[in-house]
Amino acid sequence: MTQLKNDVFLRALQRQPVPYTPVWMMRQAGRYLPEYNQTRAQAGSFLGLAQNPEYACEVTLQPLRRFALDAAILFSDILTVPDAMGLGLQFVAGEGPRFERPLRDESAIAALREPDLDSLRYVFDAVSLIRRELDGAVPLIGFSGSPWTLACYMVEGQGSSDYRQIKTLLYQRPDLLHRILDVNARAVQAYLNAQIRAGAQAIMVFDSWGGVLADGLFQQFSLYYTRQVLDGLQREHDGQRVPVIVFTKGGGQWIQDIAASGCDAVGLDWTARLSTARRAVEDRVALQGNLDPMALFGSDAAIRTEVRRVLADFGMVGAGGHVFNLGHGISQFTPPDAVLSLIDEVHTASRAYHA
Amino acid sequence: MTQLKNDVFLRALQRQPVPYTPVWMMRQAGRYLPEYNQTRAQAGSFLGLAQNPEYACEVTLQPLRRFALDAAILFSDILTVPDAMGLGLQFVAGEGPRFERPLRDESAIAALREPDLDSLRYVFDAVSLIRRELDGAVPLIGFSGSPWTLACYMVEGQGSSDYRQIKTLLYQRPDLLHRILDVNARAVQAYLNAQIRAGAQAIMVFDSWGGVLADGLFQQFSLYYTRQVLDGLQREHDGQRVPVIVFTKGGGQWIQDIAASGCDAVGLDWTARLSTARRAVEDRVALQGNLDPMALFGSDAAIRTEVRRVLADFGMVGAGGHVFNLGHGISQFTPPDAVLSLIDEVHTASRAYHA
Repeated sequence: MTQLKNDVFLRALQRQPVPYTPVWMMRQAGRYLPEYNQTRAQAGSFLGLAQNPEYACEVTLQPLRRFALDAAILFSDILTVPDAMGLGLQFVAGEGPRFERPLRDESAIAALREPDLDSLRYVFDAVSLIRRELDGAVPLIGFSGSPWTLACYMVEGQGSSDYRQIKTLLYQRPDLLHRILDVNARAVQAYLNAQIRAGAQAIMVFDSWGGVLADGLFQQFSLYYTRQVLDGLQREHDGQRVPVIVFTKGGGQWIQDIAASGCDAVGLDWTARLSTARRAVEDRVALQGNLDPMALFGSDAAIRTEVRRVLADFGMVGAGGHVFNLGHGISQFTPPDAVLSLIDEVHTASRAYHA
Repeated sequence: MTQLKNDVFLRALQRQPVPYTPVWMMRQAGRYLPEYNQTRAQAGSFLGLAQNPEYACEVTLQPLRRFALDAAILFSDILTVPDAMGLGLQFVAGEGPRFERPLRDESAIAALREPDLDSLRYVFDAVSLIRRELDGAVPLIGFSGSPWTLACYMVEGQGSSDYRQIKTLLYQRPDLLHRILDVNARAVQAYLNAQIRAGAQAIMVFDSWGGVLADGLFQQFSLYYTRQVLDGLQREHDGQRVPVIVFTKGGGQWIQDIAASGCDAVGLDWTARLSTARRAVEDRVALQGNLDPMALFGSDAAIRTEVRRVLADFGMVGAGGHVFNLGHGISQFTPPDAVLSLIDEVHTASRAYHA
């Protein structure tokens, strides 16, 4: 494999010295970029984009042509795995993802099986193609939804404001929910290992909906299964460590628990105080985050001020590791030029913290 | 005024000894009750219900006829104040509240004024009427949205998933946002003082959207103005202390800051760990919460287990104060019988913690 030209991101995840704080953005390949919308129009649909390795590779690389990002992330969707389990993923215009056959009864749950990885080959092919095209410019991140987050969509059938279906299952038939989560954990583990074998150099687990669980139940129904995934992950490939980031939206209160999951880094949303989080984990893991994505709607001066606030909150890097990111995916309405200010400020202002 | 027959709620808020943990539920007068829906149908609309003191009194009392609740809460809407400021509140069927004239430019913001309290007389009349009808059975809670939460609706014009309008204002023109918040703080203070004079025996400030702010900005744009409200509140009426509860959805990470706002109690959502929160505030304020409202969709046994989990998490009450509540408003789909299990379990199982 080609030697990496920029390994700042991978080194920061492992809390090794770096000259500046690396930066990438959740959903950096997305609708805020006109070139993305053009490729998506060519592909005909979101799924047409995600399921075609050439298109997926093209949109993965687009933000890297504009911005000095320190990592690329595979363009895909977290719902590819339940789709491969046969739930029938659909994207209804203006409504987001929806499953034709959500899990709503005991027999459907009993029949749930891990997917044949062959049906997800388009993802692994995309990973290999992106690695080839990147040619070592920056590392490539592979990812999956967490077992709990996938289960939310699988049971609700779509996004939800109250998670009533899955929580009714949780409080009425926890045994059935545990079965779904167990299948999901094994599926996600196999899926991520295949991404690693295809060339993913770091892994991120998105627990986007862990934060809707009650304290105590988050640990049992979300984090426990994330840990199951991590326990069986291939953490080295081609002689290189493959670091793992776990991001739980709304999980700031559980950072100590999450840090103990076996991950290398914890992703935090913008409500968390990095200084507090860092003290809580005692620099045993790196932290990733956590600018409010809406800060990119501010003036150039405001964006730079907010970036410096995040950097100062983490503080002198020392034995810690900090990867700069947004606290959630970038908004589709973001002016691309705002990203230039963000990245420039991270790269410039962070150097003082790495002295 | 009539002597209170049940002052357990008020005593718990002041961390005085009580024989059991008092309980009430956010949105306890609401759509999960068939009798509420009947009264609402009679009133013709949500606003017809909220703006008519007789109807407001009737629905406030309905849950108390079914359940052994330890407090009543005024039936009203947090948007009455901005409506009285002239923003034109409307309820579109199936879409929630909407303002006809949201604050979208500098001149509209410059023209914003505190409302004439006379235009909110229907609220104070409802408070007086409810007090008369309660006849001292349980205390009556008055409430308002926080300055920030009101501003969210005033700028967005409706609910939002990303708060892009108000955050654009925050990051581009913080001066304009500060002006809105300053007007709101004075308006909310006057509004709550009028509720207290009309007979509200405790006050709750709902900072429903404080949790969407970045750490650091929450303190500047939400909590600072909540503190302004509290600083000028009349904290005694008729010789009785009027305790104040501040509830910030998603605010668990900021509990120490919130506890220092001058409130008597902090309300917590279900993601918070009460034991951690209690240690953080060192029993200087009472805590209110924090059962997941979705737990009420569980079996009778599951509801009781979850209630006991919350009680045990708070632990021996000792010098602390615990008011049991949901971590958010009760869902409109809740089976009313589930509330019977909840309240019975709180009242029964909590006695051991007050030894």
